Amino acid sequence: MDAVNHQFRLAARPVGLPKPSDWTYAEEPVREPADGEVLVKIEYVSLDPAMRGWMNEGRSYIPPVGIGEVMRSFAAGEVIASKDPDVAVGEHVGGLLGVQEYALASGKGVVKVDTSLAPLPVYLGTLGMPGVTAYFGLLDIGQPQAGNTVVVSGAAGAVGGLVGQIAKLKDCRVVGIAGGEQKCRHLVEELGFDAAIDYKSQDVGAALTEHCPNGIDIYFDNVGGEILDAALAHLARRARVVICGAISQYNANGAMKGPSNYMALLVQHASMTGFVMSDYFDRYAEAVREMAGWLAAGKIVSREDIAEGLENFPEVLLRLFKGENTGKLVLKL
Amino acid sequence: MDAVNHQFRLAARPVGLPKPSDWTYAEEPVREPADGEVLVKIEYVSLDPAMRGWMNEGRSYIPPVGIGEVMRSFAAGEVIASKDPDVAVGEHVGGLLGVQEYALASGKGVVKVDTSLAPLPVYLGTLGMPGVTAYFGLLDIGQPQAGNTVVVSGAAGAVGGLVGQIAKLKDCRVVGIAGGEQKCRHLVEELGFDAAIDYKSQDVGAALTEHCPNGIDIYFDNVGGEILDAALAHLARRARVVICGAISQYNANGAMKGPSNYMALLVQHASMTGFVMSDYFDRYAEAVREMAGWLAAGKIVSREDIAEGLENFPEVLLRLFKGENTGKLVLKL
Repeated sequence: MDAVNHQFRLAARPVGLPKPSDWTYAEEPVREPADGEVLVKIEYVSLDPAMRGWMNEGRSYIPPVGIGEVMRSFAAGEVIASKDPDVAVGEHVGGLLGVQEYALASGKGVVKVDTSLAPLPVYLGTLGMPGVTAYFGLLDIGQPQAGNTVVVSGAAGAVGGLVGQIAKLKDCRVVGIAGGEQKCRHLVEELGFDAAIDYKSQDVGAALTEHCPNGIDIYFDNVGGEILDAALAHLARRARVVICGAISQYNANGAMKGPSNYMALLVQHASMTGFVMSDYFDRYAEAVREMAGWLAAGKIVSREDIAEGLENFPEVLLRLFKGENTGKLVLKL
Repeated sequence: MDAVNHQFRLAARPVGLPKPSDWTYAEEPVREPADGEVLVKIEYVSLDPAMRGWMNEGRSYIPPVGIGEVMRSFAAGEVIASKDPDVAVGEHVGGLLGVQEYALASGKGVVKVDTSLAPLPVYLGTLGMPGVTAYFGLLDIGQPQAGNTVVVSGAAGAVGGLVGQIAKLKDCRVVGIAGGEQKCRHLVEELGFDAAIDYKSQDVGAALTEHCPNGIDIYFDNVGGEILDAALAHLARRARVVICGAISQYNANGAMKGPSNYMALLVQHASMTGFVMSDYFDRYAEAVREMAGWLAAGKIVSREDIAEGLENFPEVLLRLFKGENTGKLVLKL
């Protein structure tokens, strides 16, 4: 095995937005798999807001990426060598394979994907972590009922766009919050949302009053900050707030902004519940199966935003935090 | 009816702690009840943290007290005239009767209480609004299981002390947070808490780490602010945070402090749910009946903190916000 594996390793814990010096672009020889391992040639690296949290020191739902370690990420590619009898060379797999060209992984730690059903990047989005997150976050935590008003922030992102589409399948009225006219048009025209609010040009509170005359039954939050506060001020009785992310706060220096309007939970007998996708690992297949059915039937649209070139990883990652992506952001190697 | 009714009316919306000029001490002649009304000679006025919220302008779970109106409060006393055939002169009743000596109320709007079972002030505490609040907040929203670690703030207050005692009856481990050594001793020695944390002299975070080695399963919050943040940082998996009040914030000028650590909800798959007692009006009798049984059996202790003299209302009310009361604060007329 003469190939060289290029990879991004974490060089320093970022303060604010990750900068070039927080990364080392390293190379190392590609090793042969040991017993039970597979070697994957990565074709697509997933870029997800959660990655910012993994770069921080401190307690969270998984340990931080260590300084000097390959940056953690979901990725998908082709198995090019295998010492796991259950995984054959030539099969496509996805998993937490890291920001690199080649990954050695336990055969049990990767998920086989069928590229005849959907293109590989879709398994990093609609049929991957964001899809499973949207599915369980909305259905299990949000508990949508027909006729509910569902508001989702970060609505043009990978998770948000799916949350809104699933809510429509459950006969809810769906309002998305996103940044920019183009994204808002995408939500209504391509994803079938009932309305979209452009937080960059509109007063979110006033727009919520207009679009949610009976209040918000489910607020699915990907952004935190002032938009979360605006949504809290518009909750209906017994509303459910689903905390999925807080992208507006991930690069903040100092303490996160907590939701000042949280006493709306008391006034409205409402709840705010958090989760991470890993809480649902044992039901992963159930979500993927149902999402794949919807996708095949044309009931949901999968939108990917594909950038190219491993060497561009540091700047492409920043698109998430600058709100520049529409749909699932992936890096094609 | 020659009697004169002294009363406190709201003169101005307070900024920060209510000051003497926010009140008018007024008097008016006592009227005869109209058909369906009763006239109550008030013996005890209840002083509750929620009263501070009722003095503010703006949307909440009930309308604010209007400028010039008698201050809203729970109170209990004896019926001295009645034009409701279901309520007899001489009976004792409780209800939202206001900060005054005499109240005219609809006979249907008061609750009869049996002073042979418990002294009248107990019906403003353990067998009144705070008791019902503690009962449903803990049992219905918190959902305690045997072996759970339950932490309650404002633990020496009317609601907090009952929450801890009910949690003990449900075989939970109970840790109270209160201000001052005396209150903490009261929690452990008189109310049977497993441990108490004095937020005035201890580092609450460090003390929670010590007393909750497996994390907090239920956090019942009466105070908000930094103590809420400390508790969020110690949640166990699938913890339930019950939002009952935020007394540390009621007199803050400007925006309330939101809980910066709310993303702990995501990490721990935890929920934060709010409620007000009025959500449970239709089950009020159920709670009072069970609490009365526990009280009669000596399974819970009812503690009242009794001040005297209607004219002292403005300064006695402030004891709540200065943390000077232990148990249910009432004003004896």
